[in-house]
Amino acid sequence: MTQEIPQTTLVKPMLPRGFADRNAADVAGTNKMLAEIGRVYALYGFAALETPFIETTQALGKFLPDTDRPNAGVFSFQDDDEQWLSLRYDLTAPLARHVAENFDAIPKPYRTWRAGYVFRNEKPGPGRFRQFMQCDADTIGSASLAADAEICMMAADTLEALGIKRGDYVIKVNNRKVLDGVLEAADLGGDDKAATRLIVLRAIDKLDRLGLPGVRQLLGAGRKDDSGDFTKGAGLAPDQIEKVVDFLGGSTSALVGNDGLAELAEIAGLLQAAGYGEDRVRIDTSVVRGLEYYTGPVFEAELTFEVKGEDGKPVRFGSVGGGGRYDGLVGRFRAESLPATGFSIGVSRLYAALRAIGSPLVNAAKMAGPVVVLVMDRDQIASYQALVATLRQAGIAAEMYLGAAGMNAQLKYADKRGSQCAVIQGSNERSAGEVVIKDLILGASLSGATKDRADYLELKQKAQFAVKTPAMVEAVQQVLARHK
Amino acid sequence: MTQEIPQTTLVKPMLPRGFADRNAADVAGTNKMLAEIGRVYALYGFAALETPFIETTQALGKFLPDTDRPNAGVFSFQDDDEQWLSLRYDLTAPLARHVAENFDAIPKPYRTWRAGYVFRNEKPGPGRFRQFMQCDADTIGSASLAADAEICMMAADTLEALGIKRGDYVIKVNNRKVLDGVLEAADLGGDDKAATRLIVLRAIDKLDRLGLPGVRQLLGAGRKDDSGDFTKGAGLAPDQIEKVVDFLGGSTSALVGNDGLAELAEIAGLLQAAGYGEDRVRIDTSVVRGLEYYTGPVFEAELTFEVKGEDGKPVRFGSVGGGGRYDGLVGRFRAESLPATGFSIGVSRLYAALRAIGSPLVNAAKMAGPVVVLVMDRDQIASYQALVATLRQAGIAAEMYLGAAGMNAQLKYADKRGSQCAVIQGSNERSAGEVVIKDLILGASLSGATKDRADYLELKQKAQFAVKTPAMVEAVQQVLARHK
Repeated sequence: MTQEIPQTTLVKPMLPRGFADRNAADVAGTNKMLAEIGRVYALYGFAALETPFIETTQALGKFLPDTDRPNAGVFSFQDDDEQWLSLRYDLTAPLARHVAENFDAIPKPYRTWRAGYVFRNEKPGPGRFRQFMQCDADTIGSASLAADAEICMMAADTLEALGIKRGDYVIKVNNRKVLDGVLEAADLGGDDKAATRLIVLRAIDKLDRLGLPGVRQLLGAGRKDDSGDFTKGAGLAPDQIEKVVDFLGGSTSALVGNDGLAELAEIAGLLQAAGYGEDRVRIDTSVVRGLEYYTGPVFEAELTFEVKGEDGKPVRFGSVGGGGRYDGLVGRFRAESLPATGFSIGVSRLYAALRAIGSPLVNAAKMAGPVVVLVMDRDQIASYQALVATLRQAGIAAEMYLGAAGMNAQLKYADKRGSQCAVIQGSNERSAGEVVIKDLILGASLSGATKDRADYLELKQKAQFAVKTPAMVEAVQQVLARHK
Repeated sequence: MTQEIPQTTLVKPMLPRGFADRNAADVAGTNKMLAEIGRVYALYGFAALETPFIETTQALGKFLPDTDRPNAGVFSFQDDDEQWLSLRYDLTAPLARHVAENFDAIPKPYRTWRAGYVFRNEKPGPGRFRQFMQCDADTIGSASLAADAEICMMAADTLEALGIKRGDYVIKVNNRKVLDGVLEAADLGGDDKAATRLIVLRAIDKLDRLGLPGVRQLLGAGRKDDSGDFTKGAGLAPDQIEKVVDFLGGSTSALVGNDGLAELAEIAGLLQAAGYGEDRVRIDTSVVRGLEYYTGPVFEAELTFEVKGEDGKPVRFGSVGGGGRYDGLVGRFRAESLPATGFSIGVSRLYAALRAIGSPLVNAAKMAGPVVVLVMDRDQIASYQALVATLRQAGIAAEMYLGAAGMNAQLKYADKRGSQCAVIQGSNERSAGEVVIKDLILGASLSGATKDRADYLELKQKAQFAVKTPAMVEAVQQVLARHK
């Protein structure tokens, strides 16, 4: 079985940084979560679509620079025809290619959802992977605000279907035009002020955490935090600061005649008509979400319950997804722009949230190991195989020990597998037409118990007992039922 | 809505050759198929595992050549640290890395299964993709033939669970050592005869199709087929040919004391003990399957029913998977070899087979489009949205038309979506507190019918009728039930 290989040729087995294997529980849990998301999305008429991981570099919109190397951030390579190809870095660019390529065949408006891995050629870090999963839903070819309202309802329904209780989440809706209006009123319009606008938007984004006084400092000279670190501010004049702060405080005086407010009011009306109250979807004009990219309504799905933060203190779980309206989806391919609105879920964030609340969806994925049939006599393998086949035919996950070790090592193997039950048949049992059923969970709990407990013998009898072979399936089922 | 973009910048939207998008039905069908495979595999104690799509080029075992370009056949590229990475080209090399990297943590023997896309940097062709799915199960660290027998049983159970009837498939088992023994007896051993052996193995592989006379020709000078094309043979001497043909005819005289036959007999005994007769798993010493790679038992899962071939004539569906025992899985990483046996399913071949037999698993995936609520009055969108929300809350997939077109275009849109039912509410219906339910399937069949048919009016009434709004859900459910 062991065959010496010269040490010098050995390669160190390791994944590249930023990549991870996933075990059975995580695979099953994620699949169940995505299946439930897909069920809700189908109720809304969104059809699943899968595009390949590889696109032409040109179609993805990452043009080759003059140098040999394609754009940083994207994994690109040449195929054997020397065509440049890239791994997709999000699910929107491939959707644009798909829609443009099949423009006449697809119904419009086109509701579609996609889930899958995307890749980034970036420095990985804690919780920052170079392969990670996204889950996007988009409505393409509709300029109607009803499309935006619908996506907010769908996000709310999805979170509830996944086991997040009403009140533990909120879908916040804002509109890019609202903040644009405020910024213009504060004399922050125009291309030359783009950098300042970005600092202002980042400051507004911290309203939740810092409150109005903190944001006010960040709009002005800057702010020193509890640890003494100083963040330089936007350097606005006092009257500019007041206009922004007034707005954050609830005043809409800077926004008379603003389209964004009217659009938000229309969305609010649609939500109300469909029965979605403010406990589920709420207009919140302080939401800043990738506003450079979006052109109208923007959404943020936030979990409002608290979990323990890195420092042990409770923190709100926070955002698990978001999106908004954007234009020109197929603009790279076709001489017209196509309105679109979409919502993207951070799959691993949401999965972590479901684990944090103990959602049955992902907890059911904690699977016990199979029943292990021990091999006591090597020359009886065929009869052990028959026992295993009987268990499987009854729908019980079971396996025969396939290694070469003795009984104790076989029981250790069963423990390592997370098995709850072992079936043992030595020569004595075989001649008596019996098998021994061992409850591994109960057995483990007994090993530390005091033997003079009144119920010790009774428990010991429950933890390991013999039955006639034809009664094996029933006895195993009883043991498994104890640990459901 | 249309915004002119200069034509000169437009990119042609297209996928690179050898890649394909997949629609909702195929995504759902494949997912159901894989879930069912995973259910059976779990019964056998095989745990799901997912590895990333990217590995270090070195770990995959494709070393960089002296030239700039990594090995052909594999997509390779450098990350921003200039480390060479590759897209996985199969599911075995990443498994080897995973096992070696987690050697002490994983239970041994280790049963695992994985499904996912792999990538090949090769010329694509009809039915030959550069991204395609594999589904592998492997038992690692067991030298026992029971591990091989178990994988054959699992393959049989899997095909039946997928709806392939007993008798419509067979799992064939052979052993590399058997053919090795025959080749040695025919004086075809030794490294210098490797090329001839390959031609002989290819000839044996054609036994099914050509029969003994055809194989005899291919072992000798060669064979001219029906179209007149000549295939050069192995050029064996007459006594060498007789030894091979005798074996294919059933004689084992060349194999006295051969380990392979003994191993096959042991596997046959294990199969019999577990109740797997020759109608499910059968020893067949003519199976030739990647024998260069395997070291012991080999398996082939064959579908025996007939489908129409390219020329319209019936042909056996053929192989949908196979595998066998191989050594040294982790040999690249560790100074010992580890016995392993595995089985790989050709996912798209198997999916095609399930479609060919009309398996309910993949046919159930032919989903109808959602119920479409038409928008007759733009100023009533909120009330249409409320109708849609009511349908969804009843578990009915439904959507409001989100485009800008009129009623006829909206009905065409519903047809394009594959919808079975539309809900219509104009101002008359609204003031009467009613909605019109339109059965789109029945309506389409009526449009070609003669109007003087006795039941025409009755059918017309079934195809489109008004109900009070609170009765909408029930009426829609009745229409959908007609087309189940």
